[in-house]
Amino acid sequence: MTARGDRSAGTARAQRDTYTPQTLLEVAVEVFNERGYDGTSMEHLSRAAGISKSSIYHHVRSKEELLRRAVSHALDGLAAVLDEPGARQGRAIDRLEYVTRRTTAVLMRRLPYVTLLLRVRGNTDTERWALARRREFDQRVAALLRQAAAEGDLRPEVDVRLAARLLFGMINSVAEWYRPQGEQDDPVDEAVVEAVVSTAFAGLRLHR
Amino acid sequence: MTARGDRSAGTARAQRDTYTPQTLLEVAVEVFNERGYDGTSMEHLSRAAGISKSSIYHHVRSKEELLRRAVSHALDGLAAVLDEPGARQGRAIDRLEYVTRRTTAVLMRRLPYVTLLLRVRGNTDTERWALARRREFDQRVAALLRQAAAEGDLRPEVDVRLAARLLFGMINSVAEWYRPQGEQDDPVDEAVVEAVVSTAFAGLRLHR
Repeated sequence: MTARGDRSAGTARAQRDTYTPQTLLEVAVEVFNERGYDGTSMEHLSRAAGISKSSIYHHVRSKEELLRRAVSHALDGLAAVLDEPGARQGRAIDRLEYVTRRTTAVLMRRLPYVTLLLRVRGNTDTERWALARRREFDQRVAALLRQAAAEGDLRPEVDVRLAARLLFGMINSVAEWYRPQGEQDDPVDEAVVEAVVSTAFAGLRLHR
Repeated sequence: MTARGDRSAGTARAQRDTYTPQTLLEVAVEVFNERGYDGTSMEHLSRAAGISKSSIYHHVRSKEELLRRAVSHALDGLAAVLDEPGARQGRAIDRLEYVTRRTTAVLMRRLPYVTLLLRVRGNTDTERWALARRREFDQRVAALLRQAAAEGDLRPEVDVRLAARLLFGMINSVAEWYRPQGEQDDPVDEAVVEAVVSTAFAGLRLHR
């Protein structure tokens, strides 16, 4: 999927005759984020997409399949970061900084998908599966933090479990206010990425 | 209001014959957080409270009045922090650290109320009023950050507006996972407060 495809939900709805599984997914994610997944019916999706329910069922078996595809797109983007060379080579603290930088960028590129993922609460099998995959990601990040502590690169008083939560609390909070400006090819705002990295790793206070 | 009153929604529902505006508010906040404010009817509140709708109307004029009282309790707690001596005296960076510490504690003490406040989206007059009060708070904090920069205590590359957002993104994320353990008199976990303060101000990386 292209960066443009990642963020175009709501700005460029496909025409009726050009619906693809991808454009349908974009509309569904937008409606899920507006109404909540539980509050969305196939009727809502049909109206938002401007196609009949039977046309939707031509593409997907259920509302839950749309949710699964949507959160998979977010989860796959996040998980891929951990397999990039920058996340696998070097000192753990540098790998952690790399993961922070890249995760923030993925959040911006796949904003509606990550927003939906962050709201998942665990009421359906798909939601529980998504939460389990999020936990897996969190555990891999917590392992990096533990290794950074073992290598002597974390401040000694840092509680690894709390630090992982606060780091991702900060990163994920970007989804609440970040809105790409205009129609850039890439919606990543490097100033935001730098601010996240420098706040989390160096702190706000100038130490003299 | 006592610390216990702040957090007892859902754990100690009052009996029918002891309903007060306060215990009704606790039940309402719990239901709003579970179902969403828009998704909650007076019928839902009546069932959750175990009293009739007319008994509810004896205490409040509307669902919106319950929302206003609930978010006021969160907003008043947060605003009071900015008027405490620690937030008004000394270098701006130290006042900012004090505000971070105290805001995190207020979030823990008034957890269901702050959770509700953080979900407010602006669909009603009360929600728009709550968002305006949140912005006022944010602006006072941003002013502290600007003053800390002017006093030379912020790392020079810090973008004040982004830093304010990330700092509160981190603090507010605590509401997503923090649950008081058992029945302490005070639900504040000092280890969490210290982790927020040290991550935000000193950063995770040990600088040697």
